Formats: sequence, C-alpha cells, structure tokens
Amino acid sequence: MLFNASPDLREQIGAAPALWPREGLRDSPIQSVVLTNADVDHVAGLLSLRERQPFRLIALAPVHASVRASPIFEVLAPEVVERSPVAPGERIEAAGLSIELFPVPGKAPLYEEGPDLRIGAETGETTGVLVTHDGRKLAYVPGCAQLSPSVVDRIADADVLLFDGTLFTDDEMIAAGVGLKTGRRMGHIPISGPDGSLATLRQLKAARKIYIHINNTNPILVEGSPERRLVEAAGFEVAHDGMEIGF
Amino acid sequence: MLFNASPDLREQIGAAPALWPREGLRDSPIQSVVLTNADVDHVAGLLSLRERQPFRLIALAPVHASVRASPIFEVLAPEVVERSPVAPGERIEAAGLSIELFPVPGKAPLYEEGPDLRIGAETGETTGVLVTHDGRKLAYVPGCAQLSPSVVDRIADADVLLFDGTLFTDDEMIAAGVGLKTGRRMGHIPISGPDGSLATLRQLKAARKIYIHINNTNPILVEGSPERRLVEAAGFEVAHDGMEIGF
Repeated sequence: MLFNASPDLREQIGAAPALWPREGLRDSPIQSVVLTNADVDHVAGLLSLRERQPFRLIALAPVHASVRASPIFEVLAPEVVERSPVAPGERIEAAGLSIELFPVPGKAPLYEEGPDLRIGAETGETTGVLVTHDGRKLAYVPGCAQLSPSVVDRIADADVLLFDGTLFTDDEMIAAGVGLKTGRRMGHIPISGPDGSLATLRQLKAARKIYIHINNTNPILVEGSPERRLVEAAGFEVAHDGMEIGF
Repeated sequence: MLFNASPDLREQIGAAPALWPREGLRDSPIQSVVLTNADVDHVAGLLSLRERQPFRLIALAPVHASVRASPIFEVLAPEVVERSPVAPGERIEAAGLSIELFPVPGKAPLYEEGPDLRIGAETGETTGVLVTHDGRKLAYVPGCAQLSPSVVDRIADADVLLFDGTLFTDDEMIAAGVGLKTGRRMGHIPISGPDGSLATLRQLKAARKIYIHINNTNPILVEGSPERRLVEAAGFEVAHDGMEIGF
C-alpha cells in the first residue's frame, strides 16, 4: 500500500525512502517473473502485479498456455507485460542473471487435471530453473515428482540447490487427516525413504542444499525434531521467511 | 496458517482455541461467498479458499459466467463448492440472513473489456446486495457507475448503507499521476459534484451511511481533510479495517 501512496501520504506515513518506488507513484522493482508451473501457489501472485506494472513473464510454453487459458490473467496489460516463452535449455538474460528452464517430472496444474493425467511426465508443465552468475550456479526446483536421471544431471554441478521439500513422508497428509493425496499424487517426491530426495541429493556436491516449498505437515519445520535433525545432519538447511542466500 | 497446523504445532504456537477450526484440521467458518462482480479484487480471494473447503458461491449468472471462464477457479472442487446462480431480486437464505442481488450500472470485468464495452449498463455484471434480518435492511454496493432511479429505489429504505466511495473526484487518479482512467471509465461514480453520489445519498434515510471500496488516492482517507469533513458533515462514515457494524 505504501508504494501507491501520494507524496503527502508518504510523508505522513513516514515510510523509509528506500521503500518508495523507483519511478512514479506506482512502481515495483520487479522486472521479471519466472514461473516454474501454473498451479495457484505459483501464479496467483501475478494478479497482485496488475494492472499496468511492466515486467517480463518467463516460462516454458506449457506454463504460458495454462496462464493464457484463464482470461483473468488478462489484467496483466499486454502493452506492458511481455510474455516470453522460452525453450527447455535455452539461456536467457534477466535482471543481470543467466537463466535456463528445464522440465522435471511433474504434472498438469490441479485445475487442469483430467482423466488422462500423467504424473511424473517431463512435459514442461513442471520446471526447474538454473541461475548462473559469475561462474556460480544455483538450481531452483520447487516441485519434482521424481529424481529422474535427467534432473540429477541438470542439478549435479550446482553450487546452491533449492529443492522440493513439500513432504517428509509420502502419506504424511493422509496420516495427519488433512488430505486424501500422497505427495507423489501431488507431484512431490518425499524427502525420506530409499526413493526419497534425501538419499540422492546428499550425494551431490552443492555447498548449500536447502529444502523449500515445505508443507505445514512436514516435521522438518519443527526445530529439534528427529526429522529436522536428520536433514541437518545430511547437510541440508530448511528454508524460512527472510532467508538470504549470498550468490 | 494456524488453521492448518497440526495439534502439536498448534500447542507450540499457542493460538487461542477460538481461532482453531470448528471441525477437522483444515476448515474455515465461511459458509457462503457472495460475489457482486468478477473483477480481480472481488474474486482473487476465492483462490485462497481452495482446495477442498466447502462453501456456497452466490452470484448472478453473468458473474458466475466470468468466473467459470477462467479454469484456474476449478481449484474450487465441484464436490464441495456449490455454485448458486440467483436471479435478480430473488431472495435466498444464507448464514441465517435473507439475501437479494440486484444489477447496478457497471461494466464487464477489466479482463473481459472489449471493443463493445458498455459502461453503465445494468447487465448484472455489477451488482448490489440487500441483506435483511429481523426486519432490518443493509444495502451493500461496492461498485456503481451511476445512481440510476432503479438503484436509488432499491437502497432507499435501507437502515445501513455501504456504498462505492472509490474516488472523491472523477479525474483524481489522472491528476495524481497514477492512472489514465476516470472513475466513471472504471465503473465508479465519484463522491463529489452535482452528479456525484453524495448529492443523492445524503437525502436517503439510512441511520448509517458508510463509504467503502475507497481508493488510496481518495482524500477522505485522511482524517481532518476538507473532503473527509465534508462527507462526515453529510452524515457519512469512512470505512476502515476492523470496522464493526451492528445489525
């Protein structure tokens, strides 16, 4: 709200000048938005960037298609929001960083699920991102149904790895009585178990490995829990609000 | 977030039991949602009521059609969210209240605007609500392009009136340098002027008249401003967060 206030109102509110818009009265520092899939938790925020905030929307073609299919996203005015479809593995520059999207095993967004739903297909509906800068590489994979050889290959040399930590145990939401789906049904590999993410990712060389996208049933959120200690002992951090990652 | 926490986590967080869900671990007290139009500021919140929260979605047919046209709203599972189209003037019961929707002069949602846009048409794309209980009547009209005779007729005997206070002056956003549209272009009658809402509404009998849906350029937001004093002297209140309305 402060960013939209009139100069007089800003004076009254006393917001720090550093929080004021760069230019004009309605502005944000966001120049680019990268979408890794089109589920609500990834795209609903676009509606808050309406109506005439210029930015570039970067995603693989299937994700753009899902966004395009819902007319409500036309509030992003076409004259100021550039929709940039990129190809898997194509390198583009955004905000001074080199960015590359790659398909990971996933699924269609919940609202597009139909009888022909394929979970774990690498169709480009679910995506990872590689960000490189000054010879260093960060991999961001907030949703991944399976650590397929192609995914491991793409993230193996990352210096910083942010990976899908939705659930610790595949049936955790069912056991807690808050849902009817397993993690795999939702397109999320669990952390634990012989086929879980921890067993594979702990072998990678990244200096920092961070679990992200953590569901509120996941016991790694509780400091000192056995599950938290397990992932910490394996060299993983648990993401938290306000976390900063030097890169 | 608290509402979704496990019992152990709730204990740790220490939330007041009154804030806990009524039943189960994921629940909300919201039984019905009434939509007066399908613009982003009215419908985006539905995405936060996903995925399996039961409620009834009440609106006129044109508003339902706009929501239906964006597949992202299919995250509201059809087995638990009942979409109830109602006719203009039809009385329905919801949450122990009698509710009636009526078209007001408005327009299509921003994301549906096309070359044939008609502003001020009473097509049912923009709606007012009458809520009656124990012989008392509340009128809720958050968007209204013009105080047509039919609108005045519907709200004339309300005990409590909540009305569109988006802008004080029709060209206020242009003058402030934050937009290119007049209020009327956006479907909002200004407060001031001989054709403004204040001139007409001050003649109505409601015991409480409250301006709502107030844009951040509107000087009635500033306590003590000449515009605030003007509306207060005419018997109007200015809505604020946390306002309670006995009814």
